[in-house]
Amino acid sequence: MAPTSAAKQQQHTTGKKAVGLAALDASGHLAPLAITRRSTGDDDVAIKILYCGVCHSDLHSIKNEWHNTTYPIVPGHEIAGVVTEVGKKVTKFKPGDRVGVGCMVNSCQSCDVCAAGFENHCRGIVFTYNSADPADGGSITLGGYSTAVVVHERFVVRFPDGMPLDRGAPLLCAGITVYSPMKYHGLNAPGKHVGVVGLGGLGHVAVKFARAFGMKVTVISSSPEKRQEALERLGADAFVVSKNADEMKAAGSSLDGIINTVSANVPVAPFMALLKPNGKMIMVGLPDKALEIPPFDLIMGNKTLAGSCIGGMRDTQEMLDLAAEHGVTADVEVIGVDYVNTAMERLAKADVRYRFVIDIGNTLKNSSE
Amino acid sequence: MAPTSAAKQQQHTTGKKAVGLAALDASGHLAPLAITRRSTGDDDVAIKILYCGVCHSDLHSIKNEWHNTTYPIVPGHEIAGVVTEVGKKVTKFKPGDRVGVGCMVNSCQSCDVCAAGFENHCRGIVFTYNSADPADGGSITLGGYSTAVVVHERFVVRFPDGMPLDRGAPLLCAGITVYSPMKYHGLNAPGKHVGVVGLGGLGHVAVKFARAFGMKVTVISSSPEKRQEALERLGADAFVVSKNADEMKAAGSSLDGIINTVSANVPVAPFMALLKPNGKMIMVGLPDKALEIPPFDLIMGNKTLAGSCIGGMRDTQEMLDLAAEHGVTADVEVIGVDYVNTAMERLAKADVRYRFVIDIGNTLKNSSE
Repeated sequence: MAPTSAAKQQQHTTGKKAVGLAALDASGHLAPLAITRRSTGDDDVAIKILYCGVCHSDLHSIKNEWHNTTYPIVPGHEIAGVVTEVGKKVTKFKPGDRVGVGCMVNSCQSCDVCAAGFENHCRGIVFTYNSADPADGGSITLGGYSTAVVVHERFVVRFPDGMPLDRGAPLLCAGITVYSPMKYHGLNAPGKHVGVVGLGGLGHVAVKFARAFGMKVTVISSSPEKRQEALERLGADAFVVSKNADEMKAAGSSLDGIINTVSANVPVAPFMALLKPNGKMIMVGLPDKALEIPPFDLIMGNKTLAGSCIGGMRDTQEMLDLAAEHGVTADVEVIGVDYVNTAMERLAKADVRYRFVIDIGNTLKNSSE
Repeated sequence: MAPTSAAKQQQHTTGKKAVGLAALDASGHLAPLAITRRSTGDDDVAIKILYCGVCHSDLHSIKNEWHNTTYPIVPGHEIAGVVTEVGKKVTKFKPGDRVGVGCMVNSCQSCDVCAAGFENHCRGIVFTYNSADPADGGSITLGGYSTAVVVHERFVVRFPDGMPLDRGAPLLCAGITVYSPMKYHGLNAPGKHVGVVGLGGLGHVAVKFARAFGMKVTVISSSPEKRQEALERLGADAFVVSKNADEMKAAGSSLDGIINTVSANVPVAPFMALLKPNGKMIMVGLPDKALEIPPFDLIMGNKTLAGSCIGGMRDTQEMLDLAAEHGVTADVEVIGVDYVNTAMERLAKADVRYRFVIDIGNTLKNSSE
């Protein structure tokens, strides 16, 4: 595919020519678009993108389902590639390094939460796409479905040796999203028993991390047909069909924690009964309707219902290092750019095990190349 | 008042004659009733009750508002008195000791949660009243609006020197209810900023504990007229009227934690906006309708909505010791038994600052005396 028109945002008169896959309107149809990345600043890392994972957020965004999309939009926040250039103050990276960029590319870098390593909670967070970047003239960021990106080194992580770029890319969103709450809520310890609600892009990675950490893991799904996949291929210890009252009852009070990855409007209260006293359910999916929880279900047994949104940069690097150490990667279907619109249709039907990853390096070319 | 009839439950052919204040039906009218306490077993402590606090739960229970009341019911779970006799295996107490009994009088004492000090979460928990006690032939427990009680020593706490029995009695329910979540969720540290929603029996004790711990405390109330009380008499650092949008906005993202003591069906979602990233709101009130919380409000900033129900026995003793050390007591209105039905009417209208305490020792007499 060849780029068809100039993007109106994050354009720089000087800088690096690149090509993105952009949607121009709420049809969400993606097509090549010429873009310009900023020149590499003193603290910046310029990256040639080789792979980019396809997150369900990308689909929501290109179709403006969250009502906040600025078009044209170039989605993508599971970026893996190779450093091509670094600014003169950059200390952590050099050209040739294998690196990744996740859901954010900037923050204020000066507030208490940034100092504590939670850039993901900074009020000045700049998301990797569809987000105004004050440090870049207020331009709207363009994401990783593109040939190149320039990012402040704080928001770049190193791919450890042995971590493949294609299967590792989804960890930068799906991986940190499930790893961070396991760590933060003290679930990532051998012997703990964790439940994973939903077996999709997030859920299958959660199962892998749980097993890597020596935790016992129960998959809870509305789909009985996923039992074999969960138990035999992913190695979960148990499988509970959420619609089966007998199975739910038998699993009562058995879990130290639950990672709930479901974004559909599924009642959460029944899952609280699966928790032991002091148990915690952490929502990482984002249903669009309010959760309803009887106070009694929280108060009896001191239960916790929490939310978690990705993770800070320090935790993201730690997650990637641990994943490499334990051989945790995402299960992916690598596709070329010509297939991306079809992939979006399949993603809308949850027809992927478990993550599409776009082979940017081999299938998306700069117009000048 | 003189006892009028024999209770049908927790009667013992041998044992100690006592008098309770009992409701015989859902009118909730309380009147003296002759009861018999069990003989002091090997592990038991027999207590002459001198004071008993009046908790809102007592009101719910005598009127069968939770639809689980067995009549006749003798309420009361904020018991303070003096040991009269101990069983031969009792090591912690001797006759004459000043002691208290809170919301529970037994548990299985052998499960993991009991071993961890969370008897309050034991499946075999026996509440101080209206609860079947397997260790006592399945009889229904009768509470502290009575002249005497016999309790396993594990469920008896010591009143430290200097802790008055009348002002200390409510700490056995209201105190542990607010102290336990502060401790468990790591809020009880100098410099932390905690919010207390609701300024009643629980809330005013929460403010006192927060101040004692060197925490900054903001009271959040729907009643503007409580401002002076909160700031000047109780020493809160700030006061926010929950119905005032400007005040709520100004307090946004300022709190490390919130203790929500409100049992009315007040929306909880607006309070989440008062929390800093990683902030926690803990429900200790028990509204009867489901809480509604938009997932976004939990996920953005990794917020936690948790519940907490009283506390274990170890924590209850610790709470009472800390309260004595820091001079924390409840604000009480001491009443005689002849006033108790009037007090219940006033309690239903929240017309008390902040806890009625019945002077059992001076106003409730055994029929034989």
